[in-house]
Amino acid sequence: MPLTLPENDPTLTSFLTIAADSPFPIQNLPFAVFSHASRDTAHVGVAIGDWVLDLTVLEAKGYFAGPLLAGKFVFADASLAPLMAMGRLAAREARATVSQLLQESVSTLRDNTELRQQALVSRAEVSMHLPCEITAFTDFYSSKEHASNLGKMFRNADNPLLPNWLHMPVAYDGRARSVVVSGTDFYRPQGQIKTADDAPPIHSPSQKLDVEIEVGFLIGQPSQFGQPISVNSAAEHVFGLTLVNDWSARDIQKWEYVPLGPFLGKNFCTSISPWVVTLDALEPFRVAGPSQEPEPLSYLQNSRDWNFNIELAITLQTKSMTQPEVIATPNAKTIYWDCCQELAHHTVNGCPMQTGDLFASGTVSGADANTYGSLIELTWAGQQPIQLSNGEQRVFLQDGDTVTMSGYCQGHGYRVGFGEVTGTVLPAIDLS
Amino acid sequence: MPLTLPENDPTLTSFLTIAADSPFPIQNLPFAVFSHASRDTAHVGVAIGDWVLDLTVLEAKGYFAGPLLAGKFVFADASLAPLMAMGRLAAREARATVSQLLQESVSTLRDNTELRQQALVSRAEVSMHLPCEITAFTDFYSSKEHASNLGKMFRNADNPLLPNWLHMPVAYDGRARSVVVSGTDFYRPQGQIKTADDAPPIHSPSQKLDVEIEVGFLIGQPSQFGQPISVNSAAEHVFGLTLVNDWSARDIQKWEYVPLGPFLGKNFCTSISPWVVTLDALEPFRVAGPSQEPEPLSYLQNSRDWNFNIELAITLQTKSMTQPEVIATPNAKTIYWDCCQELAHHTVNGCPMQTGDLFASGTVSGADANTYGSLIELTWAGQQPIQLSNGEQRVFLQDGDTVTMSGYCQGHGYRVGFGEVTGTVLPAIDLS
Repeated sequence: MPLTLPENDPTLTSFLTIAADSPFPIQNLPFAVFSHASRDTAHVGVAIGDWVLDLTVLEAKGYFAGPLLAGKFVFADASLAPLMAMGRLAAREARATVSQLLQESVSTLRDNTELRQQALVSRAEVSMHLPCEITAFTDFYSSKEHASNLGKMFRNADNPLLPNWLHMPVAYDGRARSVVVSGTDFYRPQGQIKTADDAPPIHSPSQKLDVEIEVGFLIGQPSQFGQPISVNSAAEHVFGLTLVNDWSARDIQKWEYVPLGPFLGKNFCTSISPWVVTLDALEPFRVAGPSQEPEPLSYLQNSRDWNFNIELAITLQTKSMTQPEVIATPNAKTIYWDCCQELAHHTVNGCPMQTGDLFASGTVSGADANTYGSLIELTWAGQQPIQLSNGEQRVFLQDGDTVTMSGYCQGHGYRVGFGEVTGTVLPAIDLS
Repeated sequence: MPLTLPENDPTLTSFLTIAADSPFPIQNLPFAVFSHASRDTAHVGVAIGDWVLDLTVLEAKGYFAGPLLAGKFVFADASLAPLMAMGRLAAREARATVSQLLQESVSTLRDNTELRQQALVSRAEVSMHLPCEITAFTDFYSSKEHASNLGKMFRNADNPLLPNWLHMPVAYDGRARSVVVSGTDFYRPQGQIKTADDAPPIHSPSQKLDVEIEVGFLIGQPSQFGQPISVNSAAEHVFGLTLVNDWSARDIQKWEYVPLGPFLGKNFCTSISPWVVTLDALEPFRVAGPSQEPEPLSYLQNSRDWNFNIELAITLQTKSMTQPEVIATPNAKTIYWDCCQELAHHTVNGCPMQTGDLFASGTVSGADANTYGSLIELTWAGQQPIQLSNGEQRVFLQDGDTVTMSGYCQGHGYRVGFGEVTGTVLPAIDLS
């Protein structure tokens, strides 16, 4: 049964003019941390059209007067964590307050020029930051098509999935400290690489630098050490979703990953989009996931659908291109294991969750070749290089390449969007 | 060339009476965070014999007057992180100041009864805390004997090491938030288990709960995103060492770990000893590690020995035993990849290091069967149960079992010890 929230009403309008294809209409209201020349420190804001609404300003004036947030000053820090920690109902109250203040029919902000000048800043002028300290990062492997593609390429074309895959959302602990906000460029990683089976490994910059488009979510309400979170209460711990680019050095990963899993091939950089779209804003776009066969064990059985119909896109812009070019368009609804199953699985052993923990879905790949979420799949292990419209080809990323990922849910006459996560590959540091 | 520090002089004595087998003579002076009924909050302290010296008290009175620490108030928080972040020379200055204050020949503290009453508390009366927020946790696999034992048991008795093992310190990112201080008991973890190859997995408490004795170290001085730490400057980033018990659910681990590595079989609980022994205190016990063949790549080539001669012990006490019984006695000097090689490898791809990041060696196992560092090795995959003196047997841990690990370096007439890391297995939570 869908949750009906007045903030999600498709007919709501703001006194601000918002384009129909804006990712940030009044039905979205995602949270982030931004800075702007007009204020001393970074602040918590909400995106609305081409603006950012500074919640610190509104909070200081007492506008967050609901039962959970009144007097709490959760926006005083340059982090979403204080709000996130209060749980999903507090996020709902915050979003409802912001929605009220931005509605065309509400005069409070609309008719107060001074307050508008203080609280609204142009989105074109702000710098974005991580939404909070990323306290842990877990990367799943929840797309059946992605896992199958890797299996077909490197293991067994007829039986590509490993035995555990259909029984659990397989995952590994990643490196939280390597998570950076969109726009952070990074040096091409170096490491041990085997160039041939019979050759000794060398120390070299990665020659197989890849991307993975993923959907991430951030933990709000924490859990206790030793206490599992049930699959049907898991959503109460999810604050909201972001996009994730899990940059991957395939050559480093290939040589290192047996038996302890991905490590240096992944933990040099993971990029996330700055705007956190709340579960509530995504509610109209909740859909059933793929059917699960065999039936999961009971601790993974959901009574509600927790997939989201999010149109994703990966674009690539090389140094010689004047604009980015779309290279893949997956959809998050194809993900096999949903966020609540991932959270129930992660905590079944008592592993504690903290406000600010990041989960990522793993590469989102669909059934069609133009919906594969990584270069290694799009080029089928290098056999089919990507042909760009300017005549260039790519198998893996070259220095100076910029990859941008975006995503949105299409409503009737509006979009609930994520904005984008972008990054550029800088040449490897010269260590000689 | 060994580093000669006056604080390491074996002839130094304190005005406090310290037993020859105390882990905490004046030559050690490890740091920790403790609390005591006599003070409002947790404080930073140094262990000396049967006492804890409260550094917050001494700092407030201006006794840390050296060039790096004067006026810095690094002990004002209940965390070692402010001191750790300043780097190895600041830790050296702090230890030198404490050493001075505790020496038999120095009257400052010796003759000031009031100050002694304020600053010294009985170690028997304190509660210990994590030394700092554990910001990341990386678990290595650096004992050749351990990796070989697992290979012999489960892969190939004639060729037990995987191809990458002799070329790099293999590791995985673990779960920092699951790291707890010694004395924290935990519920037996639950998860997916395959009881037979042809049976579907079940959801069950682990039936194969194991321990791993490891030596850990904490990062002090941080590094920058994208910037490798060279192997020969790595020690400047190491604040000190602790003992680690990497509790492991072998049945959960076995079913989940291909291809992304250990996850829920590990991240339910990892215990560390509270006292952090500085690199400087361990200097007299630095020894060469095993010879490395093939020669490592140049980024892993050390110009100095970074193994430590630490006598380790694992004890087990079941509910029906009146005292713990030693079940294994490895030595840390047998570890193949040393801490500086681990740190150089971990950062070769630019992965950033933060103050409070924890590295663990992986299970320390020696060549002899009584020096194996885990139950799965000690019982050779269950074929040879451990015979306890009261007639009980163990393959894996039962509810109520307490495992305690300890370690020390033996000097001439004194020991530089770690104290212990202990924990008790509580019955699995009933989720029905």
